Amino acid sequence: MAYACQGGKGLRGVLVVESARLFDIDGAEQAAAAVEALHAYSLVHDDLPAMDDDALRRGRPTVHVAWDEATAILVGDALQALAFRLLADPGCSPDPAVRADLVLSLATASGAAGMVLGQAQDIAAETAAQPLSLAEVMDLQRNKTGALIRWSAEAGARLARADTAPLSAYAGALGLAFQIADDILDVTGDQEKAGKRLGKDEGAGKATFVGLLGLDGAAARARSLVEDACDALAPYGDRAETLRELAGFVISRER
Amino acid sequence: MAYACQGGKGLRGVLVVESARLFDIDGAEQAAAAVEALHAYSLVHDDLPAMDDDALRRGRPTVHVAWDEATAILVGDALQALAFRLLADPGCSPDPAVRADLVLSLATASGAAGMVLGQAQDIAAETAAQPLSLAEVMDLQRNKTGALIRWSAEAGARLARADTAPLSAYAGALGLAFQIADDILDVTGDQEKAGKRLGKDEGAGKATFVGLLGLDGAAARARSLVEDACDALAPYGDRAETLRELAGFVISRER
Repeated sequence: MAYACQGGKGLRGVLVVESARLFDIDGAEQAAAAVEALHAYSLVHDDLPAMDDDALRRGRPTVHVAWDEATAILVGDALQALAFRLLADPGCSPDPAVRADLVLSLATASGAAGMVLGQAQDIAAETAAQPLSLAEVMDLQRNKTGALIRWSAEAGARLARADTAPLSAYAGALGLAFQIADDILDVTGDQEKAGKRLGKDEGAGKATFVGLLGLDGAAARARSLVEDACDALAPYGDRAETLRELAGFVISRER
Repeated sequence: MAYACQGGKGLRGVLVVESARLFDIDGAEQAAAAVEALHAYSLVHDDLPAMDDDALRRGRPTVHVAWDEATAILVGDALQALAFRLLADPGCSPDPAVRADLVLSLATASGAAGMVLGQAQDIAAETAAQPLSLAEVMDLQRNKTGALIRWSAEAGARLARADTAPLSAYAGALGLAFQIADDILDVTGDQEKAGKRLGKDEGAGKATFVGLLGLDGAAARARSLVEDACDALAPYGDRAETLRELAGFVISRER
């Protein structure tokens, strides 16, 4: 479980901590750890032979390669339980209503109407009669990666029992920009730096933003989404500077 | 997900509803559904080829046989998320502190220090140099099946914010009796009625209560544990009659 949680970018956890800072909440590390545990579980299961069958993740062998498939399934299962345990524990927030709200929203974002749905859509697309349309790819990504990024950015407002709408708008644009950058990285990236197998989308005949918009079109769309994301942070003024920088990082990253 | 939840005994859900009745709480169905979803997820994953590799469950093909492995992994993942969503939702209890407590306790019971640990111990035992001792088998089963049964029986007290100790003692004895009955069923049961593959423990060279205590010794231990379980219900008097009957059912069942 520790191995699976190491070496990531920590984007989701940083979003939790930074969104909480907007509301002068300092103790958001436990909620940040929860979403990183949940994200790690999804990677361990997605990498399994029956799913994406990946041997490399975060620059190291995937869990089922370093151990075995049964261990990888159990590690993912236990990481999911850990995520909800961290959120429901009083150390996450002294207010039980906040804790219940964080659990409810993360369970919704990560379950059959969110992240798991997105992964199922992704797998179904591999054997679909025709490639997905742009609208379908956007819907898939909104579920597969967008739901968890949105939860992370909204978490600060949830911890403060504040309005989640501005952070939700920020995260909606950010999540899509993130996925477009991922698709660009899959084509133009350096596998050494990325720490995972690249070029796999084309190999699998998957519809991607690059395939649908072209490299330049995809890059332009990502830049425009980052602008939208930053605009959505206007209500927070200068306090949101780190979240704005994060949006820029998301499309300039090498992994 | 629906397929995986159908056709079970519903023991854990009944324990939730009946333990809640002790405290005059009628609306425990949502918490009951949560533990049944969680239990169903564990069966779907345990049946996978990389784990116990079972083709039959509750009298029907297992999920990975009826669909495929990727679907079975995702169904299990989404059922776990659903369990926590049901507990964190206001429909489970109007009191957010109760909801957070139910999530925290179920995440603990089902995770790396509970159910998942038990399954990992079970898999490790298959390749261990020597068979497990009685103490080791009891520890394994306390985690693998006991933790969830205990959570289910305690849930009524948690919903009422009452003392969980008597129900915890009841469930500790009941969980062990349940597993001993399972081991007896694996040897003497009718596969048709059981709805799952039997005789598999001996085939896998697993240490079981029957192997360690003999058939008669195991049956005597189970009966004695049911008595202990019923004794633990003394504080509730006649109100606990259904829970006492349930303890008797657990060792007389055919599936």
